[in-house]
Amino acid sequence: MSTFALLCLTPLLSSTAPTGARAQSSTASLPKLHINAQRLQSNLEKLSEIGRDPATGGITRLGYSENELAAREFVTALMKEAGLNVRTDAAGNLFGSRPFSDKSSDKLPTLLFGSHIDTVLNGGRFDGAVGVIAAVEVIRALNENNIQTRHPLEVVVWTNEEGNHFGISTMGSAIAAGVLGPEILTRKDNEGVTVAEWLKRYGQDPAHLTDARIAKGSLAAYLELHIEQGPNLERAKIPIGVVQGIVGLKRWRCVVSGFANHAGTTPMDSRRDALAAASREVLAVRQAVLAESGRQVGTVGYIKVEPGAVNVIAGRAEFPVELRDLEAAKIDRMWTRIQSNFQEIDQQENVLTQCTAFDDIAPARTDPAMQSAIRAAAQSLGLATLDLPSGAVHDAQLMARIAPFGMIFIPSHNGISHAPQELSSWPDIANGAEILYRSILEADAKLDAK
Amino acid sequence: MSTFALLCLTPLLSSTAPTGARAQSSTASLPKLHINAQRLQSNLEKLSEIGRDPATGGITRLGYSENELAAREFVTALMKEAGLNVRTDAAGNLFGSRPFSDKSSDKLPTLLFGSHIDTVLNGGRFDGAVGVIAAVEVIRALNENNIQTRHPLEVVVWTNEEGNHFGISTMGSAIAAGVLGPEILTRKDNEGVTVAEWLKRYGQDPAHLTDARIAKGSLAAYLELHIEQGPNLERAKIPIGVVQGIVGLKRWRCVVSGFANHAGTTPMDSRRDALAAASREVLAVRQAVLAESGRQVGTVGYIKVEPGAVNVIAGRAEFPVELRDLEAAKIDRMWTRIQSNFQEIDQQENVLTQCTAFDDIAPARTDPAMQSAIRAAAQSLGLATLDLPSGAVHDAQLMARIAPFGMIFIPSHNGISHAPQELSSWPDIANGAEILYRSILEADAKLDAK
Repeated sequence: MSTFALLCLTPLLSSTAPTGARAQSSTASLPKLHINAQRLQSNLEKLSEIGRDPATGGITRLGYSENELAAREFVTALMKEAGLNVRTDAAGNLFGSRPFSDKSSDKLPTLLFGSHIDTVLNGGRFDGAVGVIAAVEVIRALNENNIQTRHPLEVVVWTNEEGNHFGISTMGSAIAAGVLGPEILTRKDNEGVTVAEWLKRYGQDPAHLTDARIAKGSLAAYLELHIEQGPNLERAKIPIGVVQGIVGLKRWRCVVSGFANHAGTTPMDSRRDALAAASREVLAVRQAVLAESGRQVGTVGYIKVEPGAVNVIAGRAEFPVELRDLEAAKIDRMWTRIQSNFQEIDQQENVLTQCTAFDDIAPARTDPAMQSAIRAAAQSLGLATLDLPSGAVHDAQLMARIAPFGMIFIPSHNGISHAPQELSSWPDIANGAEILYRSILEADAKLDAK
Repeated sequence: MSTFALLCLTPLLSSTAPTGARAQSSTASLPKLHINAQRLQSNLEKLSEIGRDPATGGITRLGYSENELAAREFVTALMKEAGLNVRTDAAGNLFGSRPFSDKSSDKLPTLLFGSHIDTVLNGGRFDGAVGVIAAVEVIRALNENNIQTRHPLEVVVWTNEEGNHFGISTMGSAIAAGVLGPEILTRKDNEGVTVAEWLKRYGQDPAHLTDARIAKGSLAAYLELHIEQGPNLERAKIPIGVVQGIVGLKRWRCVVSGFANHAGTTPMDSRRDALAAASREVLAVRQAVLAESGRQVGTVGYIKVEPGAVNVIAGRAEFPVELRDLEAAKIDRMWTRIQSNFQEIDQQENVLTQCTAFDDIAPARTDPAMQSAIRAAAQSLGLATLDLPSGAVHDAQLMARIAPFGMIFIPSHNGISHAPQELSSWPDIANGAEILYRSILEADAKLDAK
């Protein structure tokens, strides 16, 4: 089988090597795509009608919602058309297995690939959807080219990646990775409906939630195609990103305690203004992030003030701090610097700032073999690649706990995502799907090849 | 009558002159008070039971509410006990006129004094209440000392000074001053009830609202005793403040437009972070205020951020700017400086800040003759005085439009007000009431004395 796969790849590897700029041209001029770009575009367009707000063009398909269910029905139909055997796991994740002839007990482990079709509130068309529709298209292309792989192939649609529903992101993959368990079943949404009740609507028995777990080592690899959601590829004019890893993140909730008082009668020199202090702290976070070299980021997304009136000095201010980097030690260094700055600000402003950690996700490095497979695939199509971290969380981060993994990025116009303006060009999407196709064949040939 | 009043004052003026520190001692040791300190305290304590939250000790008696009505009934009874003729004007303000023998057409104009008994949500016992209960006590003391004045005397209880209800502060006095008119009648509260409906509950005919107007020149003067609501008197250990004027204020609502984007995938150097910019602007406001010398203040009471999530860069931030000073030109200078700083920040942060003015209250200087009357009264009791501006808005500011006015301040412990911790000592309150008594007699003797 290995020989067969290599034979198949030979003509691809020998294809001429146009520059990365080629990816900017129309689909029609792209050479030798195995995937069907037109079908890919058509299916993505059909999927984007589900949950679409005609006014904004934004899409709302929260995980565990009627809209997600409708989108799953659409994808299930596509999977069946591609000859996949469809099943839903106990967490509500959707799987499509490609029929595989080798039924022996020592057969190679499965190569899993896919993404998600849930969105944020009023999100975009491509975040998640590209990876799912491309994965099904890869199966169609393999079928049409009569290619059998060494490893069994399986397409996955993770549920509730965005986590807007129940406030738990990458929920489906986290259950599959064994990170979340039955403790979440009683979690209620805004309408008081529990996770357990939603699972029943998805046709699952909540009592069997842990059946969704995938055993460590049982997968050959996990691969995901996704939009970058950042501006790096577009800026560099490079069509394919080889993800080095998914950044880790830590989050803290900070509360500044000052003293609320009359804004007219309290002299400037006797104020304990929680908002003035918090403002300095917002800037201190940025300063600490910029003090390091690299692609690390740090964000304060809001400040909530009490009592919060035009004529009352802020008595209390609450804000979150989020730091992300591929290197956990760098996150810790930044936080140390921030804490020290906060202490200095506290003394000068006569306030007290107290921060509590509430999220800690370790960075996840992609597998070097999977990176190589993606680079080889891009080279075979003559596309330039850029190594870059993923600043966003992905289901792949959870798969990292149980399998080697890789991620392919395609450019996001202006780096915008989670918004109706989210945009990737159709040629870039077609390139991405083709690189997914070729990467799977590369991985299939190289993995477990002792 | 003038001679009589002066005769009455003679023994007071000749009283020995203890230091201001004397005010810190107990009521019992105070010399020759005409007002009854015990009765004053008892009535204030009774009033503070109305609308009191037993849990926090805070008091909620919003203007135009059942609690304010209950408090008015209590004060009405006190007024009647003091022999005053009680009436309610068309705006719901409560008046108690002291019977006056001179019915001639050329009689001197009225000396009006009082304050308010409405509070903020969960406010203190003394803001407003001291001025009202002391005013009635002054009448009792005049009666008990058989003093007739040259000018007719009237006690007033303004309604909805705090403006928590309907969001219009100094509402009752603004209607009396002719600043507000029938346009407010359709204004609705949170429960959809209009001002007109509330006026009916107060037994008034909304159609006659403008009957509440007090003609310019028809008052000899307006005098108000109030807690300072700031720390200056306590810091200086001086028991009586002679208010130089009530500061003017201007307010702006500023909106920073940045660009909301993914906090993980957007590099630091391509962010248009509305909250980082707003934080710099909060600090720029303070800097501009501190750049001037004097007692001016400037405040940003909150920042509201959209979308306001831990993992999204702020796309929009809204905050109010408030500047106060006794000198209108200084407010304008500070604002010019702030605007210039905002422009610089906009350029550096690649955002746009737009500010719209929404409040503009001119400073109101107190009448020199009324200041002199208060100083003379304090001297007669041997109390030191401090000249200071009022940083807070008061009904007196509205009376400034139609009459000469004066204000007496007493110390606020730690400068706290609008909170359950609001505190003034009983000796300080008794001093304040006595100074109100003596100031009225001083003013009665000196005003209109050509």
